[in-house]
Amino acid sequence: MLHGKNQLGIHMAEVSHVNYVYSRYEKMGKDMPISITVGHHPAFYLGCLSFVPIGIDEYGVAGALMGEPLRIVKCVSNDLEVPADAEIVIEGSVSFKERKPEAPFGEFTTMYGGQHPYHVVNVSAITMRKKPIYLDCLSGHLDHQLLGGTGRLSVIYKTVRMACPTVTDVFMPPSGCCRFTCYVAIKKRHEGEAKNVIGAVMASDPFIKYVVVVDDDVNIFNDSAVIQAIATRHKPDKDAFMIKNAKGHPLDPTASDGYVVTKIGIDATKPLQDFPPTVMVPGTDDVDLNTIFA
Amino acid sequence: MLHGKNQLGIHMAEVSHVNYVYSRYEKMGKDMPISITVGHHPAFYLGCLSFVPIGIDEYGVAGALMGEPLRIVKCVSNDLEVPADAEIVIEGSVSFKERKPEAPFGEFTTMYGGQHPYHVVNVSAITMRKKPIYLDCLSGHLDHQLLGGTGRLSVIYKTVRMACPTVTDVFMPPSGCCRFTCYVAIKKRHEGEAKNVIGAVMASDPFIKYVVVVDDDVNIFNDSAVIQAIATRHKPDKDAFMIKNAKGHPLDPTASDGYVVTKIGIDATKPLQDFPPTVMVPGTDDVDLNTIFA
Amino acid sequence: MLHGKNQLGIHMAEVSHVNYVYSRYEKMGKDMPISITVGHHPAFYLGCLSFVPIGIDEYGVAGALMGEPLRIVKCVSNDLEVPADAEIVIEGSVSFKERKPEAPFGEFTTMYGGQHPYHVVNVSAITMRKKPIYLDCLSGHLDHQLLGGTGRLSVIYKTVRMACPTVTDVFMPPSGCCRFTCYVAIKKRHEGEAKNVIGAVMASDPFIKYVVVVDDDVNIFNDSAVIQAIATRHKPDKDAFMIKNAKGHPLDPTASDGYVVTKIGIDATKPLQDFPPTVMVPGTDDVDLNTIFA
Amino acid sequence: MLHGKNQLGIHMAEVSHVNYVYSRYEKMGKDMPISITVGHHPAFYLGCLSFVPIGIDEYGVAGALMGEPLRIVKCVSNDLEVPADAEIVIEGSVSFKERKPEAPFGEFTTMYGGQHPYHVVNVSAITMRKKPIYLDCLSGHLDHQLLGGTGRLSVIYKTVRMACPTVTDVFMPPSGCCRFTCYVAIKKRHEGEAKNVIGAVMASDPFIKYVVVVDDDVNIFNDSAVIQAIATRHKPDKDAFMIKNAKGHPLDPTASDGYVVTKIGIDATKPLQDFPPTVMVPGTDDVDLNTIFA
Amino acid sequence: MLHGKNQLGIHMAEVSHVNYVYSRYEKMGKDMPISITVGHHPAFYLGCLSFVPIGIDEYGVAGALMGEPLRIVKCVSNDLEVPADAEIVIEGSVSFKERKPEAPFGEFTTMYGGQHPYHVVNVSAITMRKKPIYLDCLSGHLDHQLLGGTGRLSVIYKTVRMACPTVTDVFMPPSGCCRFTCYVAIKKRHEGEAKNVIGAVMASDPFIKYVVVVDDDVNIFNDSAVIQAIATRHKPDKDAFMIKNAKGHPLDPTASDGYVVTKIGIDATKPLQDFPPTVMVPGTDDVDLNTIFA
Amino acid sequence: MLHGKNQLGIHMAEVSHVNYVYSRYEKMGKDMPISITVGHHPAFYLGCLSFVPIGIDEYGVAGALMGEPLRIVKCVSNDLEVPADAEIVIEGSVSFKERKPEAPFGEFTTMYGGQHPYHVVNVSAITMRKKPIYLDCLSGHLDHQLLGGTGRLSVIYKTVRMACPTVTDVFMPPSGCCRFTCYVAIKKRHEGEAKNVIGAVMASDPFIKYVVVVDDDVNIFNDSAVIQAIATRHKPDKDAFMIKNAKGHPLDPTASDGYVVTKIGIDATKPLQDFPPTVMVPGTDDVDLNTIFA
Repeated sequence: MLHGKNQLGIHMAEVSHVNYVYSRYEKMGKDMPISITVGHHPAFYLGCLSFVPIGIDEYGVAGALMGEPLRIVKCVSNDLEVPADAEIVIEGSVSFKERKPEAPFGEFTTMYGGQHPYHVVNVSAITMRKKPIYLDCLSGHLDHQLLGGTGRLSVIYKTVRMACPTVTDVFMPPSGCCRFTCYVAIKKRHEGEAKNVIGAVMASDPFIKYVVVVDDDVNIFNDSAVIQAIATRHKPDKDAFMIKNAKGHPLDPTASDGYVVTKIGIDATKPLQDFPPTVMVPGTDDVDLNTIFA
Repeated sequence: MLHGKNQLGIHMAEVSHVNYVYSRYEKMGKDMPISITVGHHPAFYLGCLSFVPIGIDEYGVAGALMGEPLRIVKCVSNDLEVPADAEIVIEGSVSFKERKPEAPFGEFTTMYGGQHPYHVVNVSAITMRKKPIYLDCLSGHLDHQLLGGTGRLSVIYKTVRMACPTVTDVFMPPSGCCRFTCYVAIKKRHEGEAKNVIGAVMASDPFIKYVVVVDDDVNIFNDSAVIQAIATRHKPDKDAFMIKNAKGHPLDPTASDGYVVTKIGIDATKPLQDFPPTVMVPGTDDVDLNTIFA
Repeated sequence: MLHGKNQLGIHMAEVSHVNYVYSRYEKMGKDMPISITVGHHPAFYLGCLSFVPIGIDEYGVAGALMGEPLRIVKCVSNDLEVPADAEIVIEGSVSFKERKPEAPFGEFTTMYGGQHPYHVVNVSAITMRKKPIYLDCLSGHLDHQLLGGTGRLSVIYKTVRMACPTVTDVFMPPSGCCRFTCYVAIKKRHEGEAKNVIGAVMASDPFIKYVVVVDDDVNIFNDSAVIQAIATRHKPDKDAFMIKNAKGHPLDPTASDGYVVTKIGIDATKPLQDFPPTVMVPGTDDVDLNTIFA
Repeated sequence: MLHGKNQLGIHMAEVSHVNYVYSRYEKMGKDMPISITVGHHPAFYLGCLSFVPIGIDEYGVAGALMGEPLRIVKCVSNDLEVPADAEIVIEGSVSFKERKPEAPFGEFTTMYGGQHPYHVVNVSAITMRKKPIYLDCLSGHLDHQLLGGTGRLSVIYKTVRMACPTVTDVFMPPSGCCRFTCYVAIKKRHEGEAKNVIGAVMASDPFIKYVVVVDDDVNIFNDSAVIQAIATRHKPDKDAFMIKNAKGHPLDPTASDGYVVTKIGIDATKPLQDFPPTVMVPGTDDVDLNTIFA
Repeated sequence: MLHGKNQLGIHMAEVSHVNYVYSRYEKMGKDMPISITVGHHPAFYLGCLSFVPIGIDEYGVAGALMGEPLRIVKCVSNDLEVPADAEIVIEGSVSFKERKPEAPFGEFTTMYGGQHPYHVVNVSAITMRKKPIYLDCLSGHLDHQLLGGTGRLSVIYKTVRMACPTVTDVFMPPSGCCRFTCYVAIKKRHEGEAKNVIGAVMASDPFIKYVVVVDDDVNIFNDSAVIQAIATRHKPDKDAFMIKNAKGHPLDPTASDGYVVTKIGIDATKPLQDFPPTVMVPGTDDVDLNTIFA
Repeated sequence: MLHGKNQLGIHMAEVSHVNYVYSRYEKMGKDMPISITVGHHPAFYLGCLSFVPIGIDEYGVAGALMGEPLRIVKCVSNDLEVPADAEIVIEGSVSFKERKPEAPFGEFTTMYGGQHPYHVVNVSAITMRKKPIYLDCLSGHLDHQLLGGTGRLSVIYKTVRMACPTVTDVFMPPSGCCRFTCYVAIKKRHEGEAKNVIGAVMASDPFIKYVVVVDDDVNIFNDSAVIQAIATRHKPDKDAFMIKNAKGHPLDPTASDGYVVTKIGIDATKPLQDFPPTVMVPGTDDVDLNTIFA
């Protein structure tokens, strides 16, 4: 939020690197220098939003995603390094003394969050290209949801693979705000292994409330396909479970006591035996769409 | 199923008029005359699939849906009356003595059903137009599902309106095979009234297993919108319930003991108070799409 | 409640026609004329308590129940029509401005309800027979319970018949205050169909909390017979279900948040197969009680 | 069951003294002498059906119930002692070798039990009065149920009093076949103590499946009063519990695996605070029915 | 708690004899004389902590446990009798007027209880031996827990034996603070009988929350052995049950509304049939440890 | 099992490297060379039992655990490399054709497993030291349980740390056969985070059925301490959950359908606020045990 000619609001998420760095400055009673990059290759954003531990450089992840090293350059009013190909850079410092009320903003939940006292950035310089081009994010809408959700999938996938090496894919659909719902497709080997998969997803990301595991013939990028699997392959009294009073997301509108939510695990895989075959249109496999539409 | 040059298989569903009529012939030890219409106005099919009690003429319903009386004509080899505008009519009789194994066919569940001994039609005459045009039904696919599902919505809507006069719409989505799942949108007046709505849906149609009730700002013709309501407005430990061992559909692949299934009711309406507002893009209401795209 | 020489309290129930009519007067900022009939044929009361939609005249229902048209006559101090055979008529108007605290009264729950600010009737005239005879209602006791409950049975019966055409009877026993409990007897055709029947009852009347479905050899007008069916034919872990947080009655002493209650459905029908036969006294069928007690 | 001129069937219940005595004879490979008393004071039957440990003489209990010592006399064909005031005595011995199929009989469940191979009594003598008078028991009906149920109440009462000294009464109603259901009335002192009472009842008698605890203003000898307490004072989601897979009665028609049943505990006492008062008719306490009906 | 030179605090537990006696004095508006014995044979303490009804002299129980009559002597400043072999006796009276805040003390729960206004003892005399020896109790630790728990076992054992004559032992382990948890070992005769045993335990002592029933080959004095039985012999979905909102102990840190807790019953006995045998080391039975270690 | 002079039975566990290697030989229709090491440093065994993916050399892990490279040497009758410091090496090959019935053996469950047709090793050479020393494993007892369980802890710890960075320790106690039960200690930061921790444990190891999460002041290497945390800090209706029909271990005696079990998650951490403090003995911190016992 723009607080004045030279002042911005800033919310440093609890799990972010910037929060960690700031907390060290705050302990010393010093303002933290900051430089904000606006406008770059989309892979740069994904790199910055990756969930890597303290000590791993997000610029490196961004470079890896772009397929070439990120070119960097020093700022004009502080000592930080910023991408040389940035369109705009806002330089300044986060005050360790001042907080101002900020928000409400549209949140990834598609609802407005509440107003809170957040930190401020005092701007010392702005450098930019002529006619800069940048990707804005419509807060509370799909691009907002996707930004935060995409980076989480790799952690989830990795954890699920431990519980079930035959996992084929994972997805956090926009219908779950890219945060609350996770679909997992597996080649099922044993009855009941989907329950262990659900544990893996819940362990990977505390914000996920609904986990649905399906067979690998189900398209998990299509909500309707997943619901159809639930409707035709799932026995709710046998293959679902509920976890009450689990830690969820503070913005979850169904949370109580701040962030405590109820979570559901759904095993929608078919039984390994004695299940009717899916309808096929004979000859479909012989059709080569490339030939037809060439 | 075509059993021979002049013989077809026929499955007369338990709740259909034809089953009722046949049962009377069977008691008398007589074959039942039958005439099968192939090819007519789509409203004719909906009329024939309407759920009306014995004694109400489905030809009348078809006429009402078409907006004009159905023109009828007598058959050539039996005394039945068939639509004068039919493209093809197959005349014959259902044997009270003979049954032949029929199926597997693709069913509305998207899976193949089992083989059963069903009745046969012995054909006595076929009358048809030159180059007849008719709507075929790809069994086990969407058109199959929609045919059976559409007619049920009016009964459901009527019953729900009794429990909740402010219901705005009901839908049985293809993701539930147009049979197993029902979405209901209401203008909620009281906490908890969605539970009574769910009872109304389950009373209206024994095949429905999943009922989701949402607020009227949710588009129930879009699976993703309904799932999003569940993800953001529903508390599973408080607002869902499960009914075990209820009568369901014999083709339901999750059924045990023939047709016994578990049903779930989900109240995904927001609380009447203390819920965050939905994100809006200011100025959206001022945009007149007709002007822009004129 | 008598507020003064010419003033009565009045509670216009939320679902009543009078409430609907009054709301229109209130919007216009006008008092609503009213005439209160005291003393008539019992069928007149049932007719007035029938649950018919706005637009259907309750005088007509009363006439139907009495088997002859209700004779009516115009009031002396307002334009309303009242039964010509009434014993007492109190005429006046409901003030759109004034409310007075009323109650506590004994309620159908057998407990006292709370005190609330209700509307008042300003009396303009009273007409009456000499020595009028009328049926009083001992509030909070059986006659109070029966008055409100009887009219509801026809709606319930009709809805249940949709879910189960072989229903034989429905009853709301005084042990459930003629509001909270409903017994249903069916000729069971399918395992699990009683669960759908329960949905139908809950859809018909939001105040019902307990629904018990029994076989048609059980006398549903006898609490003990119904309990015996539960004790000997019901498996609670398989054939009962619970709905939490459903809309119930505001006077229900178990309600929280005003009117939110927990509801229970109980299927106490025997299995269709493998159940021991009921004890018979041989020869009972040969006894003709009419002969014996002639 | 009468197997022949001098032979009867006999079923020695697992927990009876006679079964204990017989098992000792069987181990020795000897027939057990037996004498069967038919016709005596009703208190004699209750005494014989009392649940006393091995070593306590049921004749003594019978005498206590009758208020005078039971007069006894020696048999003519064996050494057993029988009541001198018996109307009929059948003397004989139970064979340790022979069993014959017996039953079906009407059971206390109001249903027929199955046929089983039971022991036989070979009769050696019958002594009787002229025109003997005796109380028969219509098996499968109320007198059958009451005989077995009455004696159990004292054990239940005693155990409940340990858990709740302010218990006022216990009852096993005929609607529960005097075996499956127990009602308990207490003066409630603490929230939740009814749950401990329920444990006491289930500990006292393994055949009881349903326990309902009510306040002491509820008449537990009237099913309808108990149901009304459930309907108006009980919150099923908070104050009921279910025990699956508990040992029940082998004749219970809902049992699986021989005698395994599901049990339900229901606390239908009102909360100690914040509950509406019961409707009273003012002046009722001033009426002395004895004066009026004198 | 020592309130002054001649004044002590005293907490008279609700179910204790002293509380009963004091309540009578309080009604009369009189102080109650009291004499406190410090230091005696350990069996004396167990006797005083036994749970016997009003009217049974705890000195008698102490004598029985010691195997000889308790020698008593009169006090010097009031008329009470105290053990002649006591090490210290504090004489005085409990004021019916005064209460003082007392605590926090370490409680048997291993946590500190809250501060409450309790009664006071005004001391009139102290008599003691030279160098008195007495057993102190480290409050909040094991000796505190054992003192209160040991006496309860006999009541529990007696009640369980009624429900299951083949019970072999009962124990309230220190891991449950000798109050909250009870282990029971039985020779199992019937499937499901452990559930009735659990009821017996809960009926015997309202403070017990967890009851675990195991086979008699499990050492119930060893927590690990009991947990192993749960891990290898128990099916939680079939053989455990939960009782919500039951009366528990006011000091239970998990209680809500003062003393309302959730209780769990666990049947960890193996099935009577089809269970794998326990591993044995062949030859173990032939080893005579006495010979080896002689 | 020793099948003959030169033949052993062998069971190659489904997830082991040897099973993977053998399956490749089997596909080629060839016997697999094998060399069995008996007797080495204990760290060698842990290394061989570590759960590392295909492609990671277990000899390397063993070396790492021993703190020096594992010295290896070539076999005399096949090309495999074995530890040079082994006490005994049995060389041979696993037949791709032959299976023989093997077992029952005592299993880690403390029970005997069933007999199955397993592969055989045909021995080609045995090399050994004079008077070899080796660690035997008493099957079905603690050393058997520990061997398999220890290696799993590192995977569990790593996964839990992802869900909860403040985890302090994990343990699989012998009371759970070192397989079925896992205790986790965390420094709790948020209400409900223990539920996500439980998911992480279940994801890490499919054989675990019971997961208990406690605060870091609880000694998870002591069963009694963990049970005490459950007894005093856990609310079962709020903080436990059950997962039915999950994949478990085929030797689990409670499994149905081969390996399908019910799992339980227990959050036994105290609430972050409003919980009574633990009893302390003042001065304990000032005691230096080293000084006292020096």
